[in-house]
Amino acid sequence: MTKPLAPNATIGILGGGQLGRMLSVAASRLGYKTCIFEPGGDCPASHVANYHFQKSYDDADALREFAKSVDVITYEFENIPTSALDILEEHCRIHPNRDALRVSQDRLTEKTFLRDLGLMTAPFATVDDANSMAAAIAEVGAPSILKTRRFGYDGKGQARLKSSEDADTALADMAGAPALLEGFVNFSHEVSVIAARSIDGQVSCFDPGENVHKDGILSTTTVPARLTGSQRMDAVLLAGKILNALNYVGVMGVELFVTPQGLIVNEIAPRVHNSGHWTQNGCTIDQFEQHIRAVVGLPLGDGQRMNDVVMENLIGDDMDRLPDLLAEPTSAVHLYGKADTKPGRKMGHVNRVSPKSS
Amino acid sequence: MTKPLAPNATIGILGGGQLGRMLSVAASRLGYKTCIFEPGGDCPASHVANYHFQKSYDDADALREFAKSVDVITYEFENIPTSALDILEEHCRIHPNRDALRVSQDRLTEKTFLRDLGLMTAPFATVDDANSMAAAIAEVGAPSILKTRRFGYDGKGQARLKSSEDADTALADMAGAPALLEGFVNFSHEVSVIAARSIDGQVSCFDPGENVHKDGILSTTTVPARLTGSQRMDAVLLAGKILNALNYVGVMGVELFVTPQGLIVNEIAPRVHNSGHWTQNGCTIDQFEQHIRAVVGLPLGDGQRMNDVVMENLIGDDMDRLPDLLAEPTSAVHLYGKADTKPGRKMGHVNRVSPKSS
Repeated sequence: MTKPLAPNATIGILGGGQLGRMLSVAASRLGYKTCIFEPGGDCPASHVANYHFQKSYDDADALREFAKSVDVITYEFENIPTSALDILEEHCRIHPNRDALRVSQDRLTEKTFLRDLGLMTAPFATVDDANSMAAAIAEVGAPSILKTRRFGYDGKGQARLKSSEDADTALADMAGAPALLEGFVNFSHEVSVIAARSIDGQVSCFDPGENVHKDGILSTTTVPARLTGSQRMDAVLLAGKILNALNYVGVMGVELFVTPQGLIVNEIAPRVHNSGHWTQNGCTIDQFEQHIRAVVGLPLGDGQRMNDVVMENLIGDDMDRLPDLLAEPTSAVHLYGKADTKPGRKMGHVNRVSPKSS
Repeated sequence: MTKPLAPNATIGILGGGQLGRMLSVAASRLGYKTCIFEPGGDCPASHVANYHFQKSYDDADALREFAKSVDVITYEFENIPTSALDILEEHCRIHPNRDALRVSQDRLTEKTFLRDLGLMTAPFATVDDANSMAAAIAEVGAPSILKTRRFGYDGKGQARLKSSEDADTALADMAGAPALLEGFVNFSHEVSVIAARSIDGQVSCFDPGENVHKDGILSTTTVPARLTGSQRMDAVLLAGKILNALNYVGVMGVELFVTPQGLIVNEIAPRVHNSGHWTQNGCTIDQFEQHIRAVVGLPLGDGQRMNDVVMENLIGDDMDRLPDLLAEPTSAVHLYGKADTKPGRKMGHVNRVSPKSS
């Protein structure tokens, strides 16, 4: 058994958004202090953290000072500059590890890793220019989606091809960035597994949730998801396989397409995940606490679902509905403390809870 | 309808202990900022609050500055100096109100208030000196308990009388403080109702919990409590009566003795209550969020219990059992971030959750 960090130890969190905020709260529940590294001021996580390093990821001295002041480092987003990780890692452990970041920062590496594990992915081919684009369409076909290999999130950096005629426009959208053409998958619905792995290799998964997106952004997650018993088992097993292969420590979000041929892995995120927010009101130990438990070396909770939950994201103008949402007597509203509402901006979410149906 | 405080408003909290800490977390969930007023440094609530006024309750300037910097004031303990309240109230609303504090700060006022409401209390008589002590014993009898009228908590400021022979020792224990002799109540068990009332007068109660004390300190709270349907109804109705009589806004803890003759009110606490900690893992909206909702003018949650829970306080050396507690896969451990463990000190609690039985 690894010796866990003692209560009162400090957890460093890279990123000060809503995920960092909810990680901070979970850490406080277990008696830990948190220190946020985030260039932006008045960020959501800073409101509930002990310390806030408001510094740039280019500031080597600040990174060093941050790493020396904390007992373990984790993060709320995967696009952390490699140069920053190099400095941090000299002074402090980082969970999840570099392998997890390397795999998830690049769609090509990610897809190749998953395929090599024996898991199904959408067909894919790399695209760097008009020539490779033509070859990719020949291989993958259309309809398909062209995506930048790096730094995409919430549908950003993506262009749809209805047919090969859209190739030039889609390629122009990438603005010269290395890209991946992904073939169309004929899926009935998307589910995700929020999986956790402890330092000692214990794996625990939450019940898969069923996701609905709007405009490329997650809109709702519903538990229980529409899955057969064997699909549910498959989902959990393949998530475990991914975590074990990476010697992963922490929580990971694994997005899956449900098809008649089986489950196809869409993408993985090496962090707590929006589609796991339902666990806050559906489980005794939620994804945020599960992640904290993993990175400090504590045993994991069992992930058992106690209630049915529908999680709805509150995006931009959805905040206008806040008075109605707050008046729903069995719904838990979670707000992120962001000062300004903007279109497409995640402002909060609501978990609608009902007694467990199955 | 009262207009609620907008998200991003700031809630001032008097007191920086574990209750303030958990109130801060609940406030953050609803998008509010918090500002703690607490003379002690590195206090539990400051770890998860936006601001910490580390100032004395004698510091009129600090109190004024604090009151001006927040949008509403609430508190985690009832023994706030009247002089401080006078200053604060000039600049900012305080919920729950002065009446609630006046009643609960003095056991005589409290018992008289409850009796005047038509509720049952233990027999009581005031004790200031040897003469009134003799009269009180003649009226109330022995066994009985002598309690200071003010500033008692967790069994402090109490002396038991097995018979009238213990009168002198008990009186000496009060060190000249005004006291109350309370007659012995032959009760089978103690329950408490965590009740909430909104600014608009909406009342919502959580399911009563059954309390077990050790050495005068709460040890466990279990839901569901052993109560008949009509006792449960009585408990909730009398709590509502108390809140309405005080035009109360916020959460109150109402401790009740269960006797064959009915429910006897032991004491009330005008704040979130240790015996309501189970709601964190038993309800969609817990007592801390319910209190925040009330004081900012939001509608209340319905208090519906989703699970069975046994809450156990972790006091002093109980922290030695932490590794075992953290390894229980369906138990939620809540720690308060206190640096030093001391005998009798509340360090955290654990909520053991199981599916709802009734």
